[in-house]
Amino acid sequence: MTASEIRALFAVASRPEVVSLAGGMPNISGLPLDVVGEALRELVLTNGPVAMQYGSGQGLPELREKITDIMRLEGIEAHADDVVVTVGSQQAVDLVTRVFCDPGDVIICEAPSYVGALGVFKSYQCEIVHAEMDADGLIPEAVRQAIAATKAAGKKIKFLYTIPNFHNPAGVTLSAQRRLEILEICRTEGVLVLEDNPYGLLGFDRDPMRAMRAEESEGIIYLGSFSKTFAPGFRVGWALAPASVREKLVLAQESATLCPPQFSQMAISTYLDKADWQGQIKQFREMYRERRDAMVGALTDLMPAGCSWNVPDGGFYVWMTMPLGVNTKTMLPNAVKERVAYVPGTAFFTDGFGSGAMRLSYCYPPPDKIREGVRRLAGVVERQLDMLQTFGTAEGIPGLPIRGDEAPPTDLR
Amino acid sequence: MTASEIRALFAVASRPEVVSLAGGMPNISGLPLDVVGEALRELVLTNGPVAMQYGSGQGLPELREKITDIMRLEGIEAHADDVVVTVGSQQAVDLVTRVFCDPGDVIICEAPSYVGALGVFKSYQCEIVHAEMDADGLIPEAVRQAIAATKAAGKKIKFLYTIPNFHNPAGVTLSAQRRLEILEICRTEGVLVLEDNPYGLLGFDRDPMRAMRAEESEGIIYLGSFSKTFAPGFRVGWALAPASVREKLVLAQESATLCPPQFSQMAISTYLDKADWQGQIKQFREMYRERRDAMVGALTDLMPAGCSWNVPDGGFYVWMTMPLGVNTKTMLPNAVKERVAYVPGTAFFTDGFGSGAMRLSYCYPPPDKIREGVRRLAGVVERQLDMLQTFGTAEGIPGLPIRGDEAPPTDLR
Repeated sequence: MTASEIRALFAVASRPEVVSLAGGMPNISGLPLDVVGEALRELVLTNGPVAMQYGSGQGLPELREKITDIMRLEGIEAHADDVVVTVGSQQAVDLVTRVFCDPGDVIICEAPSYVGALGVFKSYQCEIVHAEMDADGLIPEAVRQAIAATKAAGKKIKFLYTIPNFHNPAGVTLSAQRRLEILEICRTEGVLVLEDNPYGLLGFDRDPMRAMRAEESEGIIYLGSFSKTFAPGFRVGWALAPASVREKLVLAQESATLCPPQFSQMAISTYLDKADWQGQIKQFREMYRERRDAMVGALTDLMPAGCSWNVPDGGFYVWMTMPLGVNTKTMLPNAVKERVAYVPGTAFFTDGFGSGAMRLSYCYPPPDKIREGVRRLAGVVERQLDMLQTFGTAEGIPGLPIRGDEAPPTDLR
Repeated sequence: MTASEIRALFAVASRPEVVSLAGGMPNISGLPLDVVGEALRELVLTNGPVAMQYGSGQGLPELREKITDIMRLEGIEAHADDVVVTVGSQQAVDLVTRVFCDPGDVIICEAPSYVGALGVFKSYQCEIVHAEMDADGLIPEAVRQAIAATKAAGKKIKFLYTIPNFHNPAGVTLSAQRRLEILEICRTEGVLVLEDNPYGLLGFDRDPMRAMRAEESEGIIYLGSFSKTFAPGFRVGWALAPASVREKLVLAQESATLCPPQFSQMAISTYLDKADWQGQIKQFREMYRERRDAMVGALTDLMPAGCSWNVPDGGFYVWMTMPLGVNTKTMLPNAVKERVAYVPGTAFFTDGFGSGAMRLSYCYPPPDKIREGVRRLAGVVERQLDMLQTFGTAEGIPGLPIRGDEAPPTDLR
């Protein structure tokens, strides 16, 4: 599934009659609009000519300072000098890849991995090598093997890209022990780690885990974002990088945009000053937990036997695997016809896997819609299973071109 | 002069005691802060969850519609579907280069050309071939020769990058007749035109000229920006591209940032609705004309014989050439010591030329500061000329390493 296919899908899925379990849009309706509106008015009145002017390529110093406070919640001790503000953390992925990679270089990614990062890596003609996950996240031995196999093939590994917390799309979290193991493997093998952490503060049941960056500061670039803890429309994320890399990122940022949006940065800085942002995150966590519960409850109640899913303890996503023979990509048009949308698992792999799984998002629709969406989806899957039972296989049925050579779903595929 | 050298210079030049004639920051102190502040407050209150949410990769439809209205002021008839919103027009230069260019490809640029664009082209390992300008802008015959020489060398030309109005840094404007000639040359030779037009509405004495894009819609990508007609801090620019290119730009934008800042786009859309934006541009034009007059008047009154400059009829910049033997790059530290800053001409070339010229900006400092800055600069140049007269050449004097092999300044070098 290409980026434009996903866009086309989203266009259909955004129709009001469709329950979209596809998108990753945060639900920001709970933000204190009166506080934000008044703060922005005041920002313009008292400091408008600065807020609306060009800023530095590295980003606003006062915001970078506050970003170090936020990262401290995950055990990171860092200096504001090593923070580079980006146009969402998506741009950080882009700039890091631009700085490090030449065509043909290898990036090791979880299987599955974030579709937006895979798109960046492919756009720079990098080769992606997937490493398996299980319920505890990325498997250290899989990383070790991926590195060994790539090196044995004479290829250059540029970094390991990982989302340790509340993985997109897999919903799992990398255990504390494995964080240390994977850091140790990468240190030994001389592989840089790109730790992408947009959801780390959105755990449901406990305090944030220590970031991988909290354990090691040299061979790692950490990416953060305000998109899920405040709002994505300002497009403010950041990279925390070793000094040698940071300077290159700043130059790349200047080349790409001159500077990240100054107004956005001052708006967020003002929000952090004037609003109870930690209280707001608590509210987000409760709201998302309620939705997670709605989705997992509905899946348990309604999905036919043979489907399985994980129960995420934070973030936005459930990863569901189908009974053997169901192809989530070819089933999607049927689902949209029944007014429910999801993202087929194939979007999150570059090696053809994933057709036996799907990503379900519970972040945006309210609980009753989530339940209704799952009810519709269960119907679609049931009809698909009926057909498989009737015909033995769906192959050869017009409009249902399930390829026999597609890999069966494993744990998280 | 590298991007980091320019940053270091700007750091010094931004000290309050230095009159900076170096930067290209617009003066936005005249914006109606009360109107903008109130409009943003209302935007958050009435439409906050949309304004602060992710948007489309192509940009907000209502803003793209308004952008077509703005472009109509320069004779462009276009459809909002063909507009791609970018993070400032700098990002448009970046995305176009990313989409079109491979390492070693040639881009034809004016001599001199915008330093930020040259930086992008170099970052993608493109080769830059300069084509001469004179008082009427880019010389058609120079374009023809640059194309022929490049093709003869067996190299691939990806596009001609040009700033037709109130050129940065040369201050000149491409004549109407030459616009047609250059379009004809590029059409015949199959060379795409990248028309970068941030200053087109900021003419002092007459209505905007017809854009090159007004004459031709297929072989041309037009770039516009709100940075100079409203404010740069929102980082909103755009590309208007043929449909086949536009789709690629949207995909590149999604890969780079997911989407341009939705809040910025809605803020600008609201500003266009609520404020007298055309009246504001008129006020900007008058303010910049007054500053242009202050600079040109001071240059006339104060600069030593042998210096020459153009009188721009719009935009932000004067291009000044020095008497033979003065090197603006090596002279810069002396100037900063005397509390005045400029950008040496070498920044705007990739072929080593430009050391006999400098760019002077009149956009940001008020008229009395401009005059004071020119007075300081005249003193620095005079002392430099004295030394040249005394020693015949400045070569060999410690701290004044003027290279004898540098090209003499020509018309606009």
